[in-house]
Amino acid sequence: MAKLRIIINFVSHLFRMKNIVLVGSGNVATHLGLSLVNKGYKIKQVWSRKRENANILAERLNANAIDSLNKIKNADLYILAIKDDALKSILNKINVDNVIHTSGSIDIDIFDGKFKNYGVFYPLQTFNKQVNLDFSKTPICIEANNKDFNEELLDIGKDLSEKVVEINSQERKKIHLAAVFACNFTNHMFAIADAILNNSKNNFQLLLPLINQTVEKIKKQKPSEIQTGPAARKDLKIIQQHIDSLSDNRIKEIYKIISYSIMQKND
Amino acid sequence: MAKLRIIINFVSHLFRMKNIVLVGSGNVATHLGLSLVNKGYKIKQVWSRKRENANILAERLNANAIDSLNKIKNADLYILAIKDDALKSILNKINVDNVIHTSGSIDIDIFDGKFKNYGVFYPLQTFNKQVNLDFSKTPICIEANNKDFNEELLDIGKDLSEKVVEINSQERKKIHLAAVFACNFTNHMFAIADAILNNSKNNFQLLLPLINQTVEKIKKQKPSEIQTGPAARKDLKIIQQHIDSLSDNRIKEIYKIISYSIMQKND
Repeated sequence: MAKLRIIINFVSHLFRMKNIVLVGSGNVATHLGLSLVNKGYKIKQVWSRKRENANILAERLNANAIDSLNKIKNADLYILAIKDDALKSILNKINVDNVIHTSGSIDIDIFDGKFKNYGVFYPLQTFNKQVNLDFSKTPICIEANNKDFNEELLDIGKDLSEKVVEINSQERKKIHLAAVFACNFTNHMFAIADAILNNSKNNFQLLLPLINQTVEKIKKQKPSEIQTGPAARKDLKIIQQHIDSLSDNRIKEIYKIISYSIMQKND
Repeated sequence: MAKLRIIINFVSHLFRMKNIVLVGSGNVATHLGLSLVNKGYKIKQVWSRKRENANILAERLNANAIDSLNKIKNADLYILAIKDDALKSILNKINVDNVIHTSGSIDIDIFDGKFKNYGVFYPLQTFNKQVNLDFSKTPICIEANNKDFNEELLDIGKDLSEKVVEINSQERKKIHLAAVFACNFTNHMFAIADAILNNSKNNFQLLLPLINQTVEKIKKQKPSEIQTGPAARKDLKIIQQHIDSLSDNRIKEIYKIISYSIMQKND
C-alpha cells in the first residue's frame, strides 16, 4: 500500500502545475518562492515594479526578472504575492487562465469571473526576508472557484505544508484579523517592552523565558482563562504606578486601554 | 579542580539557609515552593489568609499550614509571595531577621530598616498553578540590604535557576513594567484573537505556528525592526476594513490605538 501510494503521488506530481510566474518580490513572495523551488517547482519569472527587487529574488529562485507585466510568459500558474491595494490594478493588466493571490484580507470575488481558474492561497504566517522559516509548519488556507482547481491548490499546498485547510473568504478575513492581534500587535507589545528597557539587549533577553512561557501556556489553555498581571488581579495601585512611570503618552494610552479591557473581561 | 568545587559547593550548601517559612499560597508561592523543596530546602510553614489555600500548598510541600501570623515559627528565611498591596500590613505583623519579597514592583524600601537582613527575590516569569514550568530557565532578579545577605540570595537563586541577576529596585520596576507588555498584554492579544475566531479551538490552533514564529523572530532581531502587518505597511484600506468588521467597541479601540502606534513608529 505504501509503495502504491508513493507511485500514485509521483505520477500525479508529474502532471501537476509546475511552471509558475511569481508576481511580487516581498516577504511572502520570497518565502513562498523559495519553498516552491525547494519542492521541485519551476519559477519561470519574478515580476516586481522595481527591477532591482525582481533581480534579487529572481537570482535566488533561478528565474528571470521582469518589471513589466507585458513581458509575462505562459505558465501553469500565476501567483500574486503583492500588497493588497495593488491587486486590482495588476489583475486588470493580466490575461491568464490560472491565478491565485496570497492575501488574508482580499475576497475571492476580486477575480470577478475574468479568469478561468482562480483562488486564494493564504499562508498563515509572519514572513520576513531576513528570517528563516520552516514552511512545512505554516498552515495554508486555500479557496478556489471550482472543484478541480481546488484540488490543484490542495496538492500544491500539501507539497509545501503539513497543514492545508479549505477556508472561505469570510472565515479567512476573520483569521487574518485574529492574526493581526496574535502576531502584529503582539510584536508591538514586544517593541514597547524593548523601548521601556531602553533598548538594552541584555535586559530584553531577560524577558525571553517569560515570553516563551506565555506562549507555552496558550497551547494548553484558553488565553482568557490564564490571564495574569496587575490588571487581571485588579491591582489598581500598581496600575497607577505603571501609568505614572510611562513618559510616552502613546504608550501610556495603550497601557490604560488594554488594562481596562483585561479588567472588564475578568469581572 | 572539579572535585574540589563539588566539595566546596556541598559544604557551603550545608551552611545555607535551609529552613523557610513561605507567606502566601498563590501562583508564585506555589512554583517557588515546589522548586525550593525540589532543591532540598525545607518549607516549615505555609501561611495563607485562607486556611484552605494554606492546606493545599502545605500538603504539596510537606509543610505545616497556618492562617495566623502569630503562629509563625523560627526559620532561616521568610519569603513573602503575596499580593503587592498586602505586603505592608504583613510586614507590620512579623518580627524576624531574614525576609524577602518576590514582587517586581515593590521597592526594597518597603522593609524600612525594621529587619536585619532583607531583600527582593523576583522571579521574572508568568506563573500559573495549573501549568508546569521549568524554574531553572526563569531569570531571578535579586536585591539585598547588605553584601552577606546578597550572597545568600545569590546562592539560593543559583540553586533554583541558571540565570540570577542583581537588579536594583528602579531597574526591577522597569523590567516588571516591560514584562506586563511582553507577557500580560500579549496574552490579552491572544485572548482577543481567540474571541474573534468565536472561541473555536480548531481555528485558534491554526494561529500557533504564526505565534511561534513571532517569538522566534525577536530572539534574533529587534522587535521594532521586524514589525509586519497592515499598520506597518500603512495599508489604510485593510485597517479600515478591520475596524469596520469589529463589533466590540472595546476591541475596536484597541485595534485603532495599537495600529496608530505602529504607524507612528514606522514613520
